[in-house]
Amino acid sequence: MSVEFALYGYFRSSAAFRVRIALNLKGITPEYRFIHLLKDGGQQHNDAYRTVNPQEIIPTLVHDGHTIGQSLAIIEYLDEIVPEPALLPKDPLARARVRQLALVIACDIHPINNLKVNNYLRDHLGAGVEAQRAWHQHWIGLGFGALEALLSASHETGRYCHGDSPTVADICLIPQMANARRVSLDLASFPTLLRIETAALALPAFQAALPANQPDAE
Amino acid sequence: MSVEFALYGYFRSSAAFRVRIALNLKGITPEYRFIHLLKDGGQQHNDAYRTVNPQEIIPTLVHDGHTIGQSLAIIEYLDEIVPEPALLPKDPLARARVRQLALVIACDIHPINNLKVNNYLRDHLGAGVEAQRAWHQHWIGLGFGALEALLSASHETGRYCHGDSPTVADICLIPQMANARRVSLDLASFPTLLRIETAALALPAFQAALPANQPDAE
Repeated sequence: MSVEFALYGYFRSSAAFRVRIALNLKGITPEYRFIHLLKDGGQQHNDAYRTVNPQEIIPTLVHDGHTIGQSLAIIEYLDEIVPEPALLPKDPLARARVRQLALVIACDIHPINNLKVNNYLRDHLGAGVEAQRAWHQHWIGLGFGALEALLSASHETGRYCHGDSPTVADICLIPQMANARRVSLDLASFPTLLRIETAALALPAFQAALPANQPDAE
Repeated sequence: MSVEFALYGYFRSSAAFRVRIALNLKGITPEYRFIHLLKDGGQQHNDAYRTVNPQEIIPTLVHDGHTIGQSLAIIEYLDEIVPEPALLPKDPLARARVRQLALVIACDIHPINNLKVNNYLRDHLGAGVEAQRAWHQHWIGLGFGALEALLSASHETGRYCHGDSPTVADICLIPQMANARRVSLDLASFPTLLRIETAALALPAFQAALPANQPDAE
C-alpha cells in the first residue's frame, strides 16, 4: 500500500529543505526517505533511486504513487492541491514578483553551488579548498546583492519577502542563507535578507525544517 | 506613454529566446529593447539597465510599466493573464510534470553554462577554450540524459514534451538544444529530444523566436 506523501531528501540539501518548509506550512507530514549524498559514492546514484528520479538528485516527492522532481515544481504542486495557506499571492503581478525572487535563488544561485558542480571544479579544474570557497561566496554574494536591491526597493516587501505571510520566495531564501553561512559569506551587506530570515525562523514550519532538526542530521 | 509590452533581450540569450517563444504563442508583439551582452563591457551592467533589473541579466518584461525578471516567472505571468493557448496543462500532476521538465533545464543546465559563469572559469580558474567546452558539454549532456529518460519513459510525452501542444517544457528545451549545438555536443543519445525539437521548430512561434531571426542578430 502506498503512503500518501513521501519525500526523498537529505538533511543538508537546501532544495529538500525548501520542500520540508512547504510541507510543514501545508500541515502535511510525509514519510521521509533518506538519501545520503556522500555515502556509497552518493546514494542518489543508486539504481533503485535512478528509477525514482533519473536526474539522480533530491528532493523527489511521491504522492499517491506519482513522483515529482524539482523542488519548485513540487512546491507549486502542493500549493495547487492544498491551497491554504497560500504560498503564492493571488494577483498575477504579485505572483510574478514572488516567482522572480524565488528563481533568482533557485536558478541563479543554488545550482551553481551544488555538490556536483563543486566536485567538478575540484576534480577537473584543480580548484582547491580556497578557490572552491571563493566560487561559492562569489555566486551567493552576487545573487544576494540583487535580492537585497529588489527587496529593499519595493513597498511590497513586508515582514517576509512579499507582504506579511511566507511565500515560495521565503522558502527559497532561508535555506540559501544557511548555505551562505556554511561558506562564511559576510552577510552585513544584506540587512533586508537578515531581517526576513529572523522573521521566518520564528515560524515553527521553518524551524522544524532546519537541517539540524532532521532525523538524518549528523 | 508606456507601451503595453516591452522585452529587454539579446538575440543569443536562451532565456530571452524562451520568452520570445511564449510571446509569439500568445500572439503578443512587444517592443524589443536590445541589450548587448558583450559590447561596452556588457550593456546589462549599465546604470540605466540596473534600475530595470538589479540582477543585471536579461530578459526583463515590462507590462504597463511593471517590470518582471526571470524567464519562467515571465512565462507563468503571461500564461495567467493570457490563458489561451495554455502553456501549462490543467491537471496539477501534469502541471508538475511540465514544470519539472522545464526546471531541469532552467535550474540545472542553463545557469551553470551562462556567460558570467564561463567568464569566471576563464578568469579565475584558468580554464582554456577546451576546458570551457568540456564544462558546457558535461552539464548539458548530464541534464539531457535525465530529460531523455524522463521523456522516453512516459506515455504522457506526445508530439511535444507533454501531449500534442507546446508547453513551457518545450519553450525551455528548444533554446537549450541550440546552446548544445553551439558547444558541439553530440546529440545522438537524445532521440526523443531531437524528435521534439523538429516538431517544435515546425511551428511559426518557435521559428520566429530563433536567434538568427532577431533584428539584433549578428
